[in-house]
Amino acid sequence: MDTITSLDQMVEHICELKINRKIAVTVAEDENTIGALIEAQERGFATPILIGDKHKIKDVLIEENAKPKHFQIIDVQDHLAAAKLAVKMVHDGKADVLMKGLISTDKFLRAVLDKEKGLLPKKGIMSYVCALDLPQYDKLLFVSDTAVLPYPDLSEKIAMVKYTIQMTKKFGIENPKIALIGASEKVNDKFHYSTDYTQICKMVDRGQIPKCTIDGPLDVFLACDIESVRIKGVPTPINGEADALIFPSLESANSFYKGLMLFGGGELAGLIQGTIKPVIVMSRSESQKSKFYCIALSCLMA
Amino acid sequence: MDTITSLDQMVEHICELKINRKIAVTVAEDENTIGALIEAQERGFATPILIGDKHKIKDVLIEENAKPKHFQIIDVQDHLAAAKLAVKMVHDGKADVLMKGLISTDKFLRAVLDKEKGLLPKKGIMSYVCALDLPQYDKLLFVSDTAVLPYPDLSEKIAMVKYTIQMTKKFGIENPKIALIGASEKVNDKFHYSTDYTQICKMVDRGQIPKCTIDGPLDVFLACDIESVRIKGVPTPINGEADALIFPSLESANSFYKGLMLFGGGELAGLIQGTIKPVIVMSRSESQKSKFYCIALSCLMA
Repeated sequence: MDTITSLDQMVEHICELKINRKIAVTVAEDENTIGALIEAQERGFATPILIGDKHKIKDVLIEENAKPKHFQIIDVQDHLAAAKLAVKMVHDGKADVLMKGLISTDKFLRAVLDKEKGLLPKKGIMSYVCALDLPQYDKLLFVSDTAVLPYPDLSEKIAMVKYTIQMTKKFGIENPKIALIGASEKVNDKFHYSTDYTQICKMVDRGQIPKCTIDGPLDVFLACDIESVRIKGVPTPINGEADALIFPSLESANSFYKGLMLFGGGELAGLIQGTIKPVIVMSRSESQKSKFYCIALSCLMA
Repeated sequence: MDTITSLDQMVEHICELKINRKIAVTVAEDENTIGALIEAQERGFATPILIGDKHKIKDVLIEENAKPKHFQIIDVQDHLAAAKLAVKMVHDGKADVLMKGLISTDKFLRAVLDKEKGLLPKKGIMSYVCALDLPQYDKLLFVSDTAVLPYPDLSEKIAMVKYTIQMTKKFGIENPKIALIGASEKVNDKFHYSTDYTQICKMVDRGQIPKCTIDGPLDVFLACDIESVRIKGVPTPINGEADALIFPSLESANSFYKGLMLFGGGELAGLIQGTIKPVIVMSRSESQKSKFYCIALSCLMA
């Protein structure tokens, strides 16, 4: 397949695949969420199962010019009960993707992480990968972890790398260039990530991590700007053409992507990974377009 | 004075003030650095003192279409000796600003931090503040610490806030809106910065930190986007109109500004603060324009 270099290309690709995924939406009575789901249903790759307050859901559907009878709606008033039901449907194979609606992230994740009935395998690591579509970069930039792991340790960082490779593969990138991001390219154990990064690089050399081109620590300039690589003269196989950036902390990944959404004209699609099926968790302040891209990505990954 | 909202306005303001600062440049034989210094001298606010290899410096000056006789050049071949001389000149009041040229940051800072002959007062805290000029934000955005403190503790964070207030004041901002940045607005001691931030907010209430409007933790959306504040309904006096962002770690501040320089069309001016006089340290991969703005900022702050 050709490499996918934008989120719109990703949507086209999904439509060509003629896949259709069932999406269990928890507390679905939210305008942006339902708007994005209607679009995904119209494009033919998603079938929403709307779980929540039936009357409120119908009102939102009508407001969005959709016919309630075209949608499966399950009436569950209590938020935690709605989350448990949605998780059970995914767990039992009755839905392919879980999506958070107007429920608090805490309650939602409690159901996802339930040891017996949840979606995370025993000793599994849950992490978040997102694809950024930036007008000033000539391909997609995958970033992890923007939403889940506060301070990933070595095994969590390795999981982030693996999930990123899984995702980039679906975009036709066979040998992704992955930059392990720090404030500079110098190895220095004063920075907690530095020793983890050097271990990960050597593990890739030894075949302990799936095949990819990886290097770190690197700063954002050396990762994403060929000119900086030339000026600084740092030899790195990433060469300013990173497909993916792995960040050492939630605060760094989160601020990076939010800055680019606000000031770099970026759009994103992101997903929780590590669960048995994709889980969509978005902030209320994300746009309907970003929600649509997240749904599309989840259908690609399911 | 009117509030300065762009780096070009800052330069105009400095020219109007009719100040002229002496800048001691350590290992000056670098094209970008000398190019920026020539421009600053022509605009009338800086007088460079070029310390380094006399022949190389003359060659660069001629390449840049400047006459060597218009510049004070001090011939010192050894890098550390050049740094020590430059620091001494600033220390003794013979120069107003110290600037790093083609010398390694380690060697340069060794001279700056020398306990007896250096520029940092006893128990002083050295930190970095920079002003970002972003096409998609309607004012300057001050960011700290993008370059010096790896993981600032409480007292270092307080110093960062104080230095930021000192700098914004010079830009005509009497009551800066300062956002303490995290991955979310929730207070949660799982995040090491959360407890520091709450203490800083209360210290401002108690008058233990100079006057400013401060709040945190806040994410970048709540700090810089009014629409996000409306949607999420989080009451904060910052209200999406932050003048300054304080980051919890070097990796987060550094990646944030570098992302915006590459993908947000940003320009910057930055400085080391905490030293008895401003110190300019820039990466070789920064543009000549950014170096010029740094020189201008240092002249404003000296």
